[in-house]
Amino acid sequence: MIQRPRGTRDFGPEEMEVRRHFEDMMRQEAVLHGFREIATPIFEHTELFTLKSGPGVVEEIYAFQDKGGREICLRPELTASVVRFFVSDLATLPRPLKMFYFGQCFRYERPQAGRYREFFQFGAEIIGNATPETDAEAIGLAAAILERTGLKDYRIRVGHIGILREMLANAGVAGDKALPILQKLDKKIYPEAEELMAQAGVGPKAAQDIISTTQVTGPISVLDSRQGPASDYIRQVCDILLAMGFGNVSVDLGVVRGLAYYTGMVFEVDAPKLGAEKQICGGGSYSLSELFGGEKVFSTGFAIGFDRTLLALQTEGVQCGKVGITAFVVPVGDSVRTKAFEIVSELRRSGLSADVDLMRRGVGKSLKYAATVPSKFAVIVGEKELESSSVTLRDMNSGEQTLVKMEDLVKELKR
Amino acid sequence: MIQRPRGTRDFGPEEMEVRRHFEDMMRQEAVLHGFREIATPIFEHTELFTLKSGPGVVEEIYAFQDKGGREICLRPELTASVVRFFVSDLATLPRPLKMFYFGQCFRYERPQAGRYREFFQFGAEIIGNATPETDAEAIGLAAAILERTGLKDYRIRVGHIGILREMLANAGVAGDKALPILQKLDKKIYPEAEELMAQAGVGPKAAQDIISTTQVTGPISVLDSRQGPASDYIRQVCDILLAMGFGNVSVDLGVVRGLAYYTGMVFEVDAPKLGAEKQICGGGSYSLSELFGGEKVFSTGFAIGFDRTLLALQTEGVQCGKVGITAFVVPVGDSVRTKAFEIVSELRRSGLSADVDLMRRGVGKSLKYAATVPSKFAVIVGEKELESSSVTLRDMNSGEQTLVKMEDLVKELKR
Repeated sequence: MIQRPRGTRDFGPEEMEVRRHFEDMMRQEAVLHGFREIATPIFEHTELFTLKSGPGVVEEIYAFQDKGGREICLRPELTASVVRFFVSDLATLPRPLKMFYFGQCFRYERPQAGRYREFFQFGAEIIGNATPETDAEAIGLAAAILERTGLKDYRIRVGHIGILREMLANAGVAGDKALPILQKLDKKIYPEAEELMAQAGVGPKAAQDIISTTQVTGPISVLDSRQGPASDYIRQVCDILLAMGFGNVSVDLGVVRGLAYYTGMVFEVDAPKLGAEKQICGGGSYSLSELFGGEKVFSTGFAIGFDRTLLALQTEGVQCGKVGITAFVVPVGDSVRTKAFEIVSELRRSGLSADVDLMRRGVGKSLKYAATVPSKFAVIVGEKELESSSVTLRDMNSGEQTLVKMEDLVKELKR
Repeated sequence: MIQRPRGTRDFGPEEMEVRRHFEDMMRQEAVLHGFREIATPIFEHTELFTLKSGPGVVEEIYAFQDKGGREICLRPELTASVVRFFVSDLATLPRPLKMFYFGQCFRYERPQAGRYREFFQFGAEIIGNATPETDAEAIGLAAAILERTGLKDYRIRVGHIGILREMLANAGVAGDKALPILQKLDKKIYPEAEELMAQAGVGPKAAQDIISTTQVTGPISVLDSRQGPASDYIRQVCDILLAMGFGNVSVDLGVVRGLAYYTGMVFEVDAPKLGAEKQICGGGSYSLSELFGGEKVFSTGFAIGFDRTLLALQTEGVQCGKVGITAFVVPVGDSVRTKAFEIVSELRRSGLSADVDLMRRGVGKSLKYAATVPSKFAVIVGEKELESSSVTLRDMNSGEQTLVKMEDLVKELKR
């Protein structure tokens, strides 16, 4: 037996119904917010991701050479692709560009609960400006999507990369040199962060200040004692989110998202019920296009981990009903098989989901199969009933059977 | 500037609206027919495809080694994956299993008009039986999908691989030995087919008979003079299709689909307006699961080339309207920016697609941007009007402006 590749999944009919249900929901919500869908290729030149995330990223992705010797890889995320697309084709469109995407991403790592080698991301990017409005609009879409799915227990934490960057710069660590420290702070590995800061010449008092700043979390009032543009900025973002109806936002200056291209506001969303792997969304404002040969443009974006969000919904018991079909057409004997296809086609043309026996089974077996689909009704087509242009309509729940004129069948099924 | 990989495409907002429109349409039609969606990974063990199509297929696909030394590849098609999934997980489900899928496939070949290295397929498989009903149901779904897209000029050609197989067997060429000949006949390279037949010991008369059989095309009546189970079978399939309302089916015994696993009925759909690359759909009945370690099960399936179908629709001028949004909210000055977000959120919660200025533009520039989206209405939020709980509603087409009470705004926009 040939296995599917390690870390990948197949999705059967029931699981796929759930997935499409929530995928469509996210898409609809994004469209309501004036975002428009785009799509980019499954594989990219590896350079796209090494430019964005550094050469180390190659270790974590599916990178290979194609037959023409090109270094290509399966995309590990979609922001880089969206920005590449923006630089090459979309830079002349009116701004802001509000775009969203949904698709597979890939990473080569040890598969574990909730982490797959092929996983699905829903994401959005607003390209064109750096205003609190833009940032609030991005966070607001993420929140509206989660609200719409029915997820109850989720927490939005907003921070600002500028606060720590400024403190580090004041202590003499500016630009790229701050990055390794920020990465340790992001992962809350404080002893290593302290060591790196000491090596970079940050005094113990300043280092302690920086670490305690990453521990500032709570309602917006935790910023009351803080001055400066970054704190003001977060306050503005939270005010707009409140006006949008999202009061469940807290401040967390420990949200660092240790990547060089973030420029200001950063945010994460947790579903606490998921335990250690609780983060279901992350994003922030960034500037990437100049790295790919375009002009510098501020942007804000986020990605929702689709698989983990589904896991969170499952944990909360959020369900979506099994779809099934309206009618299953059962011919009684070979003489009426062709007639059964005429009937099933008429039902489908009327917009009713309908199926028909393909296995040449008897009536009993066909009804049994129809119940597994499940089908709400069975339409039993017998030679004798056809003489009076009628069929037998069976309610698959109650088992009740009635004789129905062919001309009334669609009407009866649509009731 | 970093380029997208050769042979791949990015899809911008307008193109993506068209693609989703037709993708959803195909999905809905399949659901109406009682098919259910499944999904499988983007990459598979390469063995899956060499087992199905022979070792030569490696030359045409994106095959590579992952970091664990596994031979994997980007899927070149989806039937093999579906059957693998069936064998490992779905074999115990009630039959027939009616499944469909939509997704990217990949092949490494020279890109040309209408042929991409990353392309999209919609496909369906019915697993569980080999009856004319099953085959008609599969062809019927393909036809119903194309009909629903609005495509006018398409031709369904139905053949039966058994007819040529039987003739070759009678001439002493049975089983796998017939395959190279069938492949030449499929591509209508008659001199080479004749040469192979001569080498295999087929006499010139029999060879001529076989070649002229592949040229039998036309309405179902072209089979009137032919006896035998395969001809009877095609007649039954066409009868059922006629009952389903698909009379535009012709017989073409030259449809061979030169692959070993086809067992009986084979069919293709052309969009003649596309010229040389006119085939938009192909399929037939097959038996593959035993090759992947499962029991032998007869199946019928097809795949529609999504990209080429869109090209055919475009050639016929079939359109889908630009979507746009209902309302764009324009704050007049900074003091009402937050209020504008409150309003846009209320509209979105009422199910109206709405957007808001994120760029801190003046009213004139915002209206200009709103026109490009396009938005049907602008909701202009001014301090003075807010005093009487009102906003100005501007019809973006006529330019007409009216003062509307906040409480009536949703109602007005939904008119």
